[in-house]
Amino acid sequence: MQYGSGDTIAAVATPMGTGGLAVVRISGPESLGVADRVFRGTPPCPSRRGRHAMLHGYIHEQGKDIDEVLLLVMRAPHSYTREDVVEIQGHGGPVVTRQILRRVLAEGVRLAGPGEFTLRAFLNGRLDLLQAEAVGDMIHARSERGAQAAMEQMEGELSRTIGAVHDELLEIAATIEVTLDFTEEDPPPLPASELQSRCAGLRTRMEALMATHTEGRLLRDGARLVICGRPNVGKSTLLNTLLDTDRAIVAPTPGTTRDVIEALLVIDGIPVQVSDTAGLRQTDCEVEGEGIRRSLKQMQQADLYLYVIDASRPPDDEDAPWMAGLDPVRTLIVLNKIDCGKPLTACEYAPFECVQTSLLRGVGVDTLQRRIRERLSQLAAHMGEAHAAISSRHHALLDQARRAVQAIEQQVEDRHEGFETRAAIHVREAAESVGQIIGRAYHEEMLEAIFTRFCIGK
Amino acid sequence: MQYGSGDTIAAVATPMGTGGLAVVRISGPESLGVADRVFRGTPPCPSRRGRHAMLHGYIHEQGKDIDEVLLLVMRAPHSYTREDVVEIQGHGGPVVTRQILRRVLAEGVRLAGPGEFTLRAFLNGRLDLLQAEAVGDMIHARSERGAQAAMEQMEGELSRTIGAVHDELLEIAATIEVTLDFTEEDPPPLPASELQSRCAGLRTRMEALMATHTEGRLLRDGARLVICGRPNVGKSTLLNTLLDTDRAIVAPTPGTTRDVIEALLVIDGIPVQVSDTAGLRQTDCEVEGEGIRRSLKQMQQADLYLYVIDASRPPDDEDAPWMAGLDPVRTLIVLNKIDCGKPLTACEYAPFECVQTSLLRGVGVDTLQRRIRERLSQLAAHMGEAHAAISSRHHALLDQARRAVQAIEQQVEDRHEGFETRAAIHVREAAESVGQIIGRAYHEEMLEAIFTRFCIGK
Repeated sequence: MQYGSGDTIAAVATPMGTGGLAVVRISGPESLGVADRVFRGTPPCPSRRGRHAMLHGYIHEQGKDIDEVLLLVMRAPHSYTREDVVEIQGHGGPVVTRQILRRVLAEGVRLAGPGEFTLRAFLNGRLDLLQAEAVGDMIHARSERGAQAAMEQMEGELSRTIGAVHDELLEIAATIEVTLDFTEEDPPPLPASELQSRCAGLRTRMEALMATHTEGRLLRDGARLVICGRPNVGKSTLLNTLLDTDRAIVAPTPGTTRDVIEALLVIDGIPVQVSDTAGLRQTDCEVEGEGIRRSLKQMQQADLYLYVIDASRPPDDEDAPWMAGLDPVRTLIVLNKIDCGKPLTACEYAPFECVQTSLLRGVGVDTLQRRIRERLSQLAAHMGEAHAAISSRHHALLDQARRAVQAIEQQVEDRHEGFETRAAIHVREAAESVGQIIGRAYHEEMLEAIFTRFCIGK
Repeated sequence: MQYGSGDTIAAVATPMGTGGLAVVRISGPESLGVADRVFRGTPPCPSRRGRHAMLHGYIHEQGKDIDEVLLLVMRAPHSYTREDVVEIQGHGGPVVTRQILRRVLAEGVRLAGPGEFTLRAFLNGRLDLLQAEAVGDMIHARSERGAQAAMEQMEGELSRTIGAVHDELLEIAATIEVTLDFTEEDPPPLPASELQSRCAGLRTRMEALMATHTEGRLLRDGARLVICGRPNVGKSTLLNTLLDTDRAIVAPTPGTTRDVIEALLVIDGIPVQVSDTAGLRQTDCEVEGEGIRRSLKQMQQADLYLYVIDASRPPDDEDAPWMAGLDPVRTLIVLNKIDCGKPLTACEYAPFECVQTSLLRGVGVDTLQRRIRERLSQLAAHMGEAHAAISSRHHALLDQARRAVQAIEQQVEDRHEGFETRAAIHVREAAESVGQIIGRAYHEEMLEAIFTRFCIGK
């Protein structure tokens, strides 16, 4: 594991780039001592300040000042990590920010791993695992709806719901295990029907939680919209129309777009990653060949495809092999250039839905945008107010727990020899899975998988 | 002017992007009132805190929390702008950061213009203009040497030197003007020789300052290195070799690089902007034609050209027209692909210096890198320890002041009728120019030109 514990860590906490300020964050037992050694200012000696303090001064190195800074002291446990934390707020240039970090690391501080400050907040009990994950979701939120859902999760809404499921599993475990403790004497009879109804109730609660997964995926990962079609049909023009910018170079030479060009839109609160792919055609050109391989990779991941066809040319057989791979439910055909010749009729492409456009002239653009919105909102049809929704990790663990609960029900139903023991094992499995969602149970690999998705400095 | 004064302004102060934290900065008389309305936390009511305070809580909007934040209060005049300043430190996602900013702006706060916080620090006397400019240099510094020079300037080194020149000009003005005040009586004689030696001394000091300009330009703007040459000679491979990455797509098809690809290296403390340009050739392809137009534009700005030639092919006339436009002093010829055929000899390109390479095999790369370093260090031959060096703005104003001082000397030398009045005018011109460097004199357009180069939030 790249994470340690108990030592002092530091990282740049602000995004890389040029800004009005940048912050180097330090956490751990040596934070204040390090601050004393790298900082001169008023008041001096950060380690002699109170619980929370703000100091003005300079970070120095070999007798020279590196940057003028504001230094914040937050003593354990009154800090983000519950450890002693020092934040050095400098002038915000990337070069000088790296210098400040290097100065701090030279004092024997370790560079923090991704999400390691939040990991410590979790390990020190300031946040449960769902709340810690919500911090990551908040940072990576690509729409306000996503950020709101993360905020709700951070405030503990989902933790309470899943915590209650976990508590119920522990109670069921106790109910079953009490019968196992009486091996020498007559055990009290297992209240089978009560147990079964409690298990059924639990499964319903789990399934309700699992139903929020599509929403959770869309809010976290966003929908993928892929623009595809043969060369020179207007794919880049369509991307530019959707973005209303000149992000992609558009030119009347087939094969202009060689790399996959990506852009982010937000449509009805759902982040939408739009990819413009290289033209699909057999080619001997190696550069284009690489682009087409990337296109095909993109095409396997989309929530919605916009397959663009040049409607000014007579239909031929070349689109068919590409379209054969598309699911009509997830595809809109864009019949473009309808002003340049005899328009193809939409029915030629049934069961695909077609929208007729002349993108260069802005014809059909409103209709196309409306249909894109409608198709995307169908994906998230049950989405109402933004609320905490589970992630793929939670879904997988809930699914394991649900199966274990089903297994308990089956054991109690069958009442074969020793079924109490087997039921007790299944209930512990379920509790372990649900506990891993909220972080009451965890193991290192699991934490590493969660926190490495964070940025460094969080 | 896009800047106001006296009102309350806000902006995101951290770089855009995903990070561990982001800061929305508010400055002006309403800062604390706004903080009271958008924040709930402990302790409550930021406006009731002392000079410097740190509060933990939430930014809320319409009854919902947007983000969990740390809120810093810095009361006037104990703040960066010398106004009441509030900083809201949130979780760092770009979406939620924009939401916090929008929440603050909804309270009647104006979005700050670029550099407006620093402009206020200048107008309120916390920084002089040279120090304020150094803040911008610090943010944009592209090497540690540049950052160190900015830090020295921020700490007032250059201000003291130029302030002393300004003081001297004011003393000379007083010496001359005292003779003008005695129009009715006999004026005291102008101490001409003393005046001339003081003017000569001033010019020497100004010229010493002006000599730091090349260094200042290189530290601020960096050196420009342009890779050029005909198609498929290895330009992108050369860029990748210098960067040691796969930033540019390399493929054996002429005309692969269509856009100018830029990258930043730091060589001996000097930031170096490296541009890989589209292949130079006559082409009917519109897309390539655009790339070539951009190449030509780049070529007019460089400090060093690397002109790459395919040494495996027999020499022909096609390089000559491009090379005719290159200055041998600023050009290295890279004879590439020396492993693929009879190498061209360097002497064919005299007076250009040639380096022979086989970039794909790594042959000649060390020599090339050494020659690049040496050529660049010649540009900044007089650069020693990093120290504050003047910018183009300062250079232009010093040049004006120097001419005015020369004009004083000429007037005193000539002693024509009314020379005292003309000398007094010139000394005031010189003082005005030098005063504008340090900000003792300024006008709105000048401040706007300076601060719009800053980022928003600084």
